[in-house]
Order: sequence, then C-alpha cells, then structure tokens
Amino acid sequence: MAISEKELFAKLSDQAIELPSWAFGNSGTRFRVFGSPGVPRDPFEKIADAAQVHKFSGIAPTVALHYPWDKVDSFADLRKHANDLGVELGTINSNTFQDEEYKLGSLAHRDPKVRQRAIDHHFDCIDVMHETGSRDLKIWLADGSNYPGQDDLRARQDNLADSLAKIYARIGDNQRLVLEYKFFEPAFYHTDVPDWGTAYAQVSALGEKAVVCLDTGHHAPGTNIEFIVMQLLRLGKLGSFDFNSRFYADDDLIVGAADPFQLFRIMYEVIRGGGYGGGSGVAFMLDP
Amino acid sequence: MAISEKELFAKLSDQAIELPSWAFGNSGTRFRVFGSPGVPRDPFEKIADAAQVHKFSGIAPTVALHYPWDKVDSFADLRKHANDLGVELGTINSNTFQDEEYKLGSLAHRDPKVRQRAIDHHFDCIDVMHETGSRDLKIWLADGSNYPGQDDLRARQDNLADSLAKIYARIGDNQRLVLEYKFFEPAFYHTDVPDWGTAYAQVSALGEKAVVCLDTGHHAPGTNIEFIVMQLLRLGKLGSFDFNSRFYADDDLIVGAADPFQLFRIMYEVIRGGGYGGGSGVAFMLDP
Amino acid sequence: MAISEKELFAKLSDQAIELPSWAFGNSGTRFRVFGSPGVPRDPFEKIADAAQVHKFSGIAPTVALHYPWDKVDSFADLRKHANDLGVELGTINSNTFQDEEYKLGSLAHRDPKVRQRAIDHHFDCIDVMHETGSRDLKIWLADGSNYPGQDDLRARQDNLADSLAKIYARIGDNQRLVLEYKFFEPAFYHTDVPDWGTAYAQVSALGEKAVVCLDTGHHAPGTNIEFIVMQLLRLGKLGSFDFNSRFYADDDLIVGAADPFQLFRIMYEVIRGGGYGGGSGVAFMLDP
Amino acid sequence: MAISEKELFAKLSDQAIELPSWAFGNSGTRFRVFGSPGVPRDPFEKIADAAQVHKFSGIAPTVALHYPWDKVDSFADLRKHANDLGVELGTINSNTFQDEEYKLGSLAHRDPKVRQRAIDHHFDCIDVMHETGSRDLKIWLADGSNYPGQDDLRARQDNLADSLAKIYARIGDNQRLVLEYKFFEPAFYHTDVPDWGTAYAQVSALGEKAVVCLDTGHHAPGTNIEFIVMQLLRLGKLGSFDFNSRFYADDDLIVGAADPFQLFRIMYEVIRGGGYGGGSGVAFMLDP
Repeated sequence: MAISEKELFAKLSDQAIELPSWAFGNSGTRFRVFGSPGVPRDPFEKIADAAQVHKFSGIAPTVALHYPWDKVDSFADLRKHANDLGVELGTINSNTFQDEEYKLGSLAHRDPKVRQRAIDHHFDCIDVMHETGSRDLKIWLADGSNYPGQDDLRARQDNLADSLAKIYARIGDNQRLVLEYKFFEPAFYHTDVPDWGTAYAQVSALGEKAVVCLDTGHHAPGTNIEFIVMQLLRLGKLGSFDFNSRFYADDDLIVGAADPFQLFRIMYEVIRGGGYGGGSGVAFMLDP
Repeated sequence: MAISEKELFAKLSDQAIELPSWAFGNSGTRFRVFGSPGVPRDPFEKIADAAQVHKFSGIAPTVALHYPWDKVDSFADLRKHANDLGVELGTINSNTFQDEEYKLGSLAHRDPKVRQRAIDHHFDCIDVMHETGSRDLKIWLADGSNYPGQDDLRARQDNLADSLAKIYARIGDNQRLVLEYKFFEPAFYHTDVPDWGTAYAQVSALGEKAVVCLDTGHHAPGTNIEFIVMQLLRLGKLGSFDFNSRFYADDDLIVGAADPFQLFRIMYEVIRGGGYGGGSGVAFMLDP
Repeated sequence: MAISEKELFAKLSDQAIELPSWAFGNSGTRFRVFGSPGVPRDPFEKIADAAQVHKFSGIAPTVALHYPWDKVDSFADLRKHANDLGVELGTINSNTFQDEEYKLGSLAHRDPKVRQRAIDHHFDCIDVMHETGSRDLKIWLADGSNYPGQDDLRARQDNLADSLAKIYARIGDNQRLVLEYKFFEPAFYHTDVPDWGTAYAQVSALGEKAVVCLDTGHHAPGTNIEFIVMQLLRLGKLGSFDFNSRFYADDDLIVGAADPFQLFRIMYEVIRGGGYGGGSGVAFMLDP
Repeated sequence: MAISEKELFAKLSDQAIELPSWAFGNSGTRFRVFGSPGVPRDPFEKIADAAQVHKFSGIAPTVALHYPWDKVDSFADLRKHANDLGVELGTINSNTFQDEEYKLGSLAHRDPKVRQRAIDHHFDCIDVMHETGSRDLKIWLADGSNYPGQDDLRARQDNLADSLAKIYARIGDNQRLVLEYKFFEPAFYHTDVPDWGTAYAQVSALGEKAVVCLDTGHHAPGTNIEFIVMQLLRLGKLGSFDFNSRFYADDDLIVGAADPFQLFRIMYEVIRGGGYGGGSGVAFMLDP
C-alpha cells in the first residue's frame, strides 16, 4: 500500500500524545531517585514544561494529572494556565498506593472502611474532572498481596467489582472509567488486575463507559502485546495506552527504546483496528 | 480448619482424574521420540492400560480419546471394552495440526475451505461423542503464525469465532465445547488462543455450554495460575484442567514435579471456588 | 540414606545464618516504604534485634553490616556491643549506589575519578573489617546502563576488572572479596555483573581470596539455580548466598516462600558439594 | 563515525556466513514436520542448494555438515563436489541425540560405555574433518535430565569434562573444538551446558583450541545477549555464532525476524570486539 508524503504527514498529525505531569518530575528506582536541575516545583511548572513540548512537537496537546500529586487550590486556575499555554488538561490518574491505609490494598481491600476511603478518593477525582474538563479517570491499582495465603483472591476480586461499580455510577455522561492492568509490582505474589482478561471482565461488567488501559510495560516476558491490542479493539474495550519500553520488568524506558519493531507491530494493529487518531477514542499517553 | 482423616479420604475419593489415551503411547521431543517396551499398539490396548491405573488407584474412572488417533471401526465396541474393564470413555480431543491442509491453521485459517474441513472434523468428533457417551469436546488449536505479517491477526480471530459458532450449534444438550488456550508452540509468533482472556471472550460469545480448559503448562513465565483458576471459576467458565508441570516452556512433565507448592495453591483455589469433585463440572485431566 | 533424628539435629546445628542489619529496618518498593512500629533507630538497636533472633533460634550467630548505613563513631564499641549480646559482626557490604556521583556507575564508571572514589570507599570498608573482625567484603554493584549505546560495555568491564584488582590488593590474608551478580535492576538495559559467568571470570582473574555471592533472586526467569550452585562449588568459587525468594523479579520475599522445592534442591546441591556448615567457607545470609 | 558507501560494501564483503546443510531439509515441530516440494534428497543436493545461495549472495562460501546425517561413501567426493560448485565444506556438527543409547545423555552419561560411544563418534567426526578440510568440530549436546533427582548434576559435569578432554586431545593443530550451550530443550529440568559460563569454564579447562558457540536462541527470557558477545570476545573464547531469532523458546526463526534491533546490538559488539570478518576466528552460521 503506497502512501504519499503528504498523506503520511497528515496521518502523523492526527496523532495526539498525552504527557503525564509526573514525567517532568524526578524519578528513579527503589535504590535511589537522582535529581536533575530545573525540575518543576509545582503543577503549574509541570504544565509549562509540557506545553513547551507541545510547542515544539505539535502532537502533545494534553497533559494528564495525578491526584493528589497535582492538587492545587484551584483547578480552574490550573486549567486556565494550561489553556493560556496552548494545552488542555487530560486524564486524571488516581492514587491508591501512598496512604498508610493502603498497605494491603485499596479498592480490593478486605476492610470496607478502607475500600470506602479509596472510593471517596475516586469521587474526588471525578469532581476534579468536572473542573478540568477531563474525559478519562484512569485507575491503576497497586492492590495485591506478597505471599500466598495473605488474603483471599476471590473475595478481593468481588470487592474490586463492587468498588468499581460504585465509582462507575458517579462517572459523567462524557466521562470514562479506564482500568489499567499490571502483571506484578509493587505486589510480588498477586495483583488484583494482573492481565487484560481481568481488566476486560471487570469493565465489561460495568458498562459502555468503562474501558481498558494497556501499559506496554505491564506484561509477562514474551507476551505478544499487539495481539492484545487487536483483541481489545475487536471487543470494543481499548481505552488508552501507556507507552513505554522494557527489557526486563516494568522498566519504564522511553517508548521504542528496547524494541522498536514491537512498537511498529503495535501501531500497525492500532491503525488497522481503528484505534488511531483523535476520533478513535483511544488515548495515547507516554509513561516513561 | 481441622479435618478428620475420614473426611480427608472421603474428599480425596471425590476426585476423578481423566487419563488421556495418548499418555500411554511413546512421546518425545522434536529431536527424537524414544520408544518403551510394552507400549499399547491400538486404542483397545491403551484403554486396557488406563483401566489398570483405575484398578490400582480408584480415582481414574474415565479415559479421554484423541480423534482420529483413536479412531476405531466401532466406538460402541470400544465403549463396551472400556466398560467391561471398569472405566468410561471421556473427553473427545480433536486434531487440527496433522493434516497437510492445516499448515497455516484450521478453524482460524484464511481459506474458508480449510476452515470448513476443520469444522467438519469437529462435527465428526461430536458424532463420536454421541457413541462414546462423552460430555466434552475439547478443542486445542495449533493455529497461529510464525512471523509478524504472515497473516491478519484480527481476521483470524473473527474466523475463529465464526468456526466455533458453527461447531457450538451442533453441540448436544448434555455436551460442552471446551476451548483450550496456549501461550505459544507450535506457532512461534502468535497463537490464535494464547491466553485465558481470549478463550474467555470466545466462549462467552458462544453460550453456556462453552467453557475454558486451563492447561497448567500453557502460560508465560511467572504467570500466577491460581489467580486465573479463581477468576474463571468466579466467571463460571472453568471447564477443565490439563494437569502437567513445567520449568521452561510447555514441558509436559508429570504434574507437581516442578513446583508442588504451585499445585497446592491451584488446588486450594479449585476447592474454595467450587471446582472440586464430580458434581462441580470441572474435569481434571492429566496431560504428561 | 537414613539419618537419625540426633544426626539430623546435629546437622541443622552446623548451620550458621548471617542476618543483615538492614533487614531490621523498614523496606518497600519504589512506590512507597511503609513503616512499622518498633523499627531500630541506629546500628546498635539493629544488632540488639539480630541478637534476639539468635537467642531464640541458635543459628544466627553473626550480623552483616552495610557501610555507610551502619557507620558509627566506634566500630570497636559496636563489636563489643554485639559480643555482649552473644553475636559477632560479619560481612561488610559496601554501597555504590547512593551518592550523586554514582548515577552512571561506580567501579565500572567511565570517569577514573568516580572509580577512585568507589575504590576508596572499599578501602574504608576494609579498614572497618579490621575493626569488626569481619572476613568478607561483599560487593554488589548497581553499575549498569539503561539504554543501548549509553556507554561502552567492554570498557566498563575492563574498568571493573581494574578497580577490583586494586581493592583485592588491599584485602587481608584472612579476608575475602565476594562479588555478587544480578540480572537487572536498578539498571534496565545492562548490568556490569549480570550473571555467574561474569562474576566467575572476574574473581578468577583476581585470585584465591576472591569468590562469588549467589543471591537466589538475581536470575532470569526459569534459571536452574541449583545447577549454578553445583558449578560454583565444583569450580571452588562459591563464597556465599543471599537467600530470598521470588515470583517475578528481585522480589526479596522470605526465602522458601515462593518455591520451597527449589530451596530444597539448592540445599541438596550445597550439602553434596561440600558447601554446608561453618568449615565449608560458604556463608549463608538472609536477604529479605 | 561516517563511513563511505565503498567502505561499507567492502566491510559487508568481509562477512562470511556458513550455511548448515540441514537448513535445506524439511523441519518442523514435535507436532508435525510439514514437507516442501524440491527438498534435497541427499548431501550432494543439499550442497548444490547451498552453492546456489552463495552464487546469488556472494557471502555464503562454506557449508556446515551434520554427521551422520550427511554421511556419504566418500567425503573426498563430497568436497570435490562442493569445490566444483564454488563452496567449501565447513564445520562438522556431531550428533548425540538420535541413538537409543543416548536417551539419558552422551558425553555426560553416567555409564562409561555410553560416554565412550559418544567420544568415538567425535573421533569419527575428526576423521571426517581431515577429509573435508574443516576447521571446527561443533558440539551441541542434548544431554540433561527431565526431573530433579534423575541424575547427579556434579558427576555429569565431571564426566563431561573428562569426555571433552579426550576429544580435545585428538583435535588437530589447525582444528578447534567449539562447545555450544543451550538453556533448555530437549531436556526440561537441567541441561549439562546451559549457559555461557558453563561453556566457558569447560573450554577454558581444555586449552586454546577450545572455544564457545553462541546460539542466539539459546538463552533465558530477557538475557542481554550482546553483553555475552562482548564478554566472550574479551575473554578470547568466542568461536562461532548460530544465528536465528526467537519470541519464546528456541524458536529457530530467521535471524533478525523477531527483534532486528537486538541483532544490530549484537553486530555492534561483534565488530567493536574484533569478531567480524574472516580473519577474526569467529564463524557466523545461520541456524533457522
């Protein structure tokens, strides 16, 4: 299939890549976080940096926020700040792994009080979304366990379904609940949403506004990721990507760095399956 | 939870393990099949050997057949032979990997003629099931591709859905279609049913009499298998097990040989999830 | 081979398990470190906790230190404190991953000044060893790179050999240099000592007082660890173990938690290969 | 570093890729070997096909033989046949996996009679090498075990060392013994030469004419292969490559098919490390 240079560039311009605010902060490993000079000190500075990327690239028009990392006094102000710089606020990412209460889980926790706390946190996120004009509430859970027998796998799955249903009931008409799966880490025995099958079963039980987020670094060694892309598109449940790259675990390297041919194969399935471009409903996010 | 010795033995007696006829033949690797003295020469001798196992163990009351490997002139005679020896004929396993036509697939093949051939083969299997009194038609597919771009992943998935629907329409009231998934091999780039999520999506589209077979050796390295057991039981779609053991790939070692603790964790979820014992609808098959 | 209960207990008493001081501190993942009440506040309290374990178990007579985490004004005082509580100070573990200078490596770094800094740090560790009466200097390196092309693999290996030779020259007559290997993490593209082969090649170039540390969690998925145990014992280069357990990556779970049968197979090779008990020269350390 | 087109083509012409005779036969999986029309019927036809490849490519001047698969009445005739068609006979590959006696191993077998049989087979191969003018005797062993406890890992390693020493003593002045390692398969619990470290330790004990063969498909998932290339070149022990490609296990796909960027990284280390071109002593073989 031949394509002209003009068509190619038009096609590339259709691409919209969401930048996560936290990508502009320092990051690292459990051994050490090395600092860099010039790192943004608050959400406003992060958005200014992201806007700069969009200014130079033209394909990064939105910035994802992490709540409460990016909590500000006024999200209306933050939105205006973004718009003034030429970008929009995008996906709201919840946090269920930093509170002392979440040591043994959040939405899947055995204690209904902890679950309610985590559900309330997502209600807060939905409130923020109304202020920021965000479409997607992305839920990545650190929930899981570290040892066999530590908790009841089945009860946790049912708890999770129940918690998600409560959050889903609050999702607005133009909003979506996006559930991300991850093979392992920070939990080292089981995670409550370890694979696309679990994410698919959970969001299917919720309804049309619930979809799956595929993080390219969240699979077992050897997994054929483009097959999953194809399958989720076929089933109408691919909501978004977290693009990054890996050699070993969830290494969070720059997308395409470890295996550019794999990225090509993924993109091929995205385009063939109707997941490419603004109108497709599939969001692209970098997650380095 | 304490359990008396008597209760324990009663519990163990509830177990019914199906033996596959082909386990009594020679097996090996792509490098060589080493022969053993005394190996059965035909299906009647295989069943006699299996019956001997049941005689000594008391927990192997059924024998699975592979069609056409176990084709005989009269399945009524074979059934009578089995019954005379104290066992029943069990699951019928189809074969879609030995004909020249299946080089590039069977139920998912791009050529409708090849697909029809494979569908017809399953119709034959269903006919056999009526003669043998078998409940389960087990479908393990060698379908897949060896190189990226060799075929259309999505079209194959749709072909597969279509083929399965035709077979399912022929399944009797007391019969089940059991779809097995496998991570890789013999295809080395993609398999058309690589994971439980795909098997689940396919059987869910068929109906209540379609369920999933979990082969304990068919997963990516590190996969938490007991989680999948829990999930399939929770979703009402765990139909049967192929029990074996592995260190590396689909090694087909004797179940429990590589990681007995994993087998314990799997059994724990089976029992908790209601998948244990004759009445549960979950069949146990050894597949060494 | 039958063994009497008395012999068995005598055999078990031969075991000496070294406890690392840092096991008594809080630990966690890159996502969060959850605190526990009663965690020791300084090296003296860590040693008191370790001594308590020895008091109850009778098989944990030494405590490994991490330098500079366990730096105190007087190591003679710390040693006396340990002795008073019934334990000895053991292995000294160096740290080459926490200083800003070590962002791109330490003993293998391309900059000779950074390498010298890391060498000097090991000289300090050797000085401490003379005060604590420690036999082993254990070197685990975070050295590596995150992207292909980021640095020169071969030059780094030569740098490492050169740095180790300088450290080795300072090792006392009754001391050993113990080099640990690790498959990945914190570096995500390459580590400078990724496998036993590299550790073996490096310590063989140094001399008899240089040996290898095998951390049971530092291998690729599927690796037959007991084979490596056998091989290193056969080659006379197994110096010590870091015992822990894993399902996925370097999960650092409690030894035996994930696969107790693997631990049995490892111990079987240890005993057969002459690596068991105080006189064997093979140190057992827990590293949860 | 800029390079002119002329220099680039000269560099490419330095490349000499050895073709294995068996690559021109039918191959397949344990499930089925599918035939192709026009497949050579004997060693003479295989060499004619290989010569055709050299005629068109100019970079495949030698053909590796497998003994006894390629046994002919006169190797002098086969050599003349090859020379007449413009190619040379290359590496001789031994076979230690097809005889009934080798079911439990060959050079590492516990029975000295079986070991002697395998040693004698290698003596035969060396005789053939003198007739064919081959430099390299390549030893890939299927030796290993399928279950823990099936055999004595250490004794097998010592047996192997002893067998290799006897073969090495017969190697001619201009010949080399090339030992290949493989992670697993056909043995599913342990292989006697599973990794580069073992191959390195074994060939180092033999002498200068013993080197290692690196098959790009014979590693654990995630292994950094270019690191091993660098290390073996650094240690002066990289003898040859078997080039192929894999997604899962030893898939034997066409080299570069699964991960072309990995092939680039490997080649980069080959060239930097002095392993490229006819004079380097490193043989390139395709092994699809």
